[in-house]
Amino acid sequence: MFDIIPIDGGVSAVDGIYCDGVSAGLKKDNALDVAFIYSDSLLDVESIFTTNLFKAAPISYYLEHTKGKQSNFILINTKNANAMTGDRGIKDVGEILDSLKDRFHIITNPIMCSTGVIGQYLPKEKIINSFDLFNLKSKNHINASNAILTTDRFNKEIALRVDLEEGSFTIGAMAKGAGMIEPAMATMLCFIVTDANIPKDDMKYLLDECAFSTFNAISVDGDTSTNDSVFLLTNRKSKAYNKEAFKCALDMVMKKLALDILKDGEGSSKVVAFEVKNAKNKNEAMKCAKALTNSLLVKTALFGCDPNWGRIASTIGSCGIFADSNTLKIYIGDILIYDCQEINFDAESKAAKIMKEDSFRIICDLGIGDSSSSFTAYGCDLGHKYVEINSDYRS
Amino acid sequence: MFDIIPIDGGVSAVDGIYCDGVSAGLKKDNALDVAFIYSDSLLDVESIFTTNLFKAAPISYYLEHTKGKQSNFILINTKNANAMTGDRGIKDVGEILDSLKDRFHIITNPIMCSTGVIGQYLPKEKIINSFDLFNLKSKNHINASNAILTTDRFNKEIALRVDLEEGSFTIGAMAKGAGMIEPAMATMLCFIVTDANIPKDDMKYLLDECAFSTFNAISVDGDTSTNDSVFLLTNRKSKAYNKEAFKCALDMVMKKLALDILKDGEGSSKVVAFEVKNAKNKNEAMKCAKALTNSLLVKTALFGCDPNWGRIASTIGSCGIFADSNTLKIYIGDILIYDCQEINFDAESKAAKIMKEDSFRIICDLGIGDSSSSFTAYGCDLGHKYVEINSDYRS
Repeated sequence: MFDIIPIDGGVSAVDGIYCDGVSAGLKKDNALDVAFIYSDSLLDVESIFTTNLFKAAPISYYLEHTKGKQSNFILINTKNANAMTGDRGIKDVGEILDSLKDRFHIITNPIMCSTGVIGQYLPKEKIINSFDLFNLKSKNHINASNAILTTDRFNKEIALRVDLEEGSFTIGAMAKGAGMIEPAMATMLCFIVTDANIPKDDMKYLLDECAFSTFNAISVDGDTSTNDSVFLLTNRKSKAYNKEAFKCALDMVMKKLALDILKDGEGSSKVVAFEVKNAKNKNEAMKCAKALTNSLLVKTALFGCDPNWGRIASTIGSCGIFADSNTLKIYIGDILIYDCQEINFDAESKAAKIMKEDSFRIICDLGIGDSSSSFTAYGCDLGHKYVEINSDYRS
Repeated sequence: MFDIIPIDGGVSAVDGIYCDGVSAGLKKDNALDVAFIYSDSLLDVESIFTTNLFKAAPISYYLEHTKGKQSNFILINTKNANAMTGDRGIKDVGEILDSLKDRFHIITNPIMCSTGVIGQYLPKEKIINSFDLFNLKSKNHINASNAILTTDRFNKEIALRVDLEEGSFTIGAMAKGAGMIEPAMATMLCFIVTDANIPKDDMKYLLDECAFSTFNAISVDGDTSTNDSVFLLTNRKSKAYNKEAFKCALDMVMKKLALDILKDGEGSSKVVAFEVKNAKNKNEAMKCAKALTNSLLVKTALFGCDPNWGRIASTIGSCGIFADSNTLKIYIGDILIYDCQEINFDAESKAAKIMKEDSFRIICDLGIGDSSSSFTAYGCDLGHKYVEINSDYRS
């Protein structure tokens, strides 16, 4: 038996974890652009990174120098991804982290993460100068979660306390991400900190498991970035741990942040769950659900609140899975809009109403396999705001 | 030795071929919406259809009843795709074609093609009533090529005369298509008519061969429709034929129409050729080139004339092929914008100028394989017009 209780504080809700966001002058108008997470004891670290072949310099640096080691510090900058910057980009990370260790002698194996525009060298001096503003005793999680944003419209954080019979543990997290979000890993940074007494093996297993149905099931635009990173860190200050409870809480944390990213998906106005049921197998269900979240014609129909199920059917037929128009059923919300027997014109006006809501479900019952062959992917609409933001990102 | 000379007349440029477009009341305001192509002698027919599993009713009808037979008539309606309409949709095609044969006793094995909205039954009576307006002696190719359009902004046709030493033959063609255009076959109808004395085997071989580098190399939005069809028909009235000359002319016809479709790509403002060179093999070059034409972030950067090569690199790295950032070179036009050694900031302003042009080339030299491992795919930008057209298509 366990209880999960939402609490305030983001990452700083965890005992011994400190954070802040400062302005290093990377963004205009003194906006917050550099954040840190500091722990007063060493943390075990697990991570998942982008599948993009061209990994950003901070990821290359981490994989070469830091992976497998305990750490007590994460430095994050926004506005510049330090990606496609070659050897110089990796050297820059090393120099910045060396300078950080010189400045604060209590920092061990610091980790750096970057997000922003690809293909520009880091403004190293600005970042190093901003260390003067760091107060390692700060718990300003609002500033920290704001300082990691790029085109995001709002900050994303959550904290949960999990009460077990033998005690409690806490999970706190913050994330950024709004575009370039792809099923094969969102363009995003996510930092999850806990004091749970979780074994190292469980950290890796549960992080992968929960990513499958959360960050790996959302899509804003089908693009996969060079910088995607998810970190799970624990200081084990609480002696409490229960695998089932931890999985449940971690899933809640990651799903909340994944849907926040989707809701923020560069200019999107609604979040739509695409549930594909009774496919030939689970893999085909997943392929189909993700294809639906990525279809431009489906996304623009969502924007226009147009129950244009023909575009949904066309995507199902062309996404490379087995399907049969004679067993297919399509629902928008609870409205059966295509049932392979007869076209239901009356349903369209009802479905159009549902599509005006902020979030709803589209169910595609392929009518082939059994109920275990299902997958839900989450997508959003594509409207003018997306075009505005992305045609004008760097200016 | 042969000469290829552009001539007027579209499909009707071919001896013995007649065509027209009429208004059946499917579109508003008496716009043209039904077209026909009639031949005064029987034609051999080859075709390529959509790879979408959910093929539209006219395609199912053709495959079951007409394929392999000679024909002298094609009936085309727009506004309604007659797709996802089940058995009734197929029965409707049969009834319309039976009625056509009753009305004009000289018509043999007529073919029907439809394009437009998916999931609505054909307005059968309106189409049948429009037969009264058909003048089988008409050569009004302008009306015919206009009557097959949906969201297209302009009609698409071409005719070429090929002069050989032993005589001449003619190829005339018309096409429609503006959205839902995918590398695996565009959302389009295309009718290519010739009087060349081309052997049946060459018809199929050359049609497939030319489709590979034309219609199968363009992408507007990565969606594959239920109705895509390309027909090649010959009456063999000319005794002239030369395989190499025919292939060259057919390629010109299909590339011209493919690029017209792309130029018209629902709201696009420019056509961009993505040439991927020196990949591991030709297949990986094709996969990469097509991924670039489909990346939303690349498409919106094209719209914004932003030489954001980081998005191009990120797409190359995530599209599932082998690539190495240490051998990669990216050119916009003739400007080397990323050369894996040093970021070339001066190049960006020059590249931005090139991106303001109506059409230009982006070359991605992967620096791995040899020059045979190359492919060029054609894409367009994505701007506000695309969103407008597609969020509002059915209203």
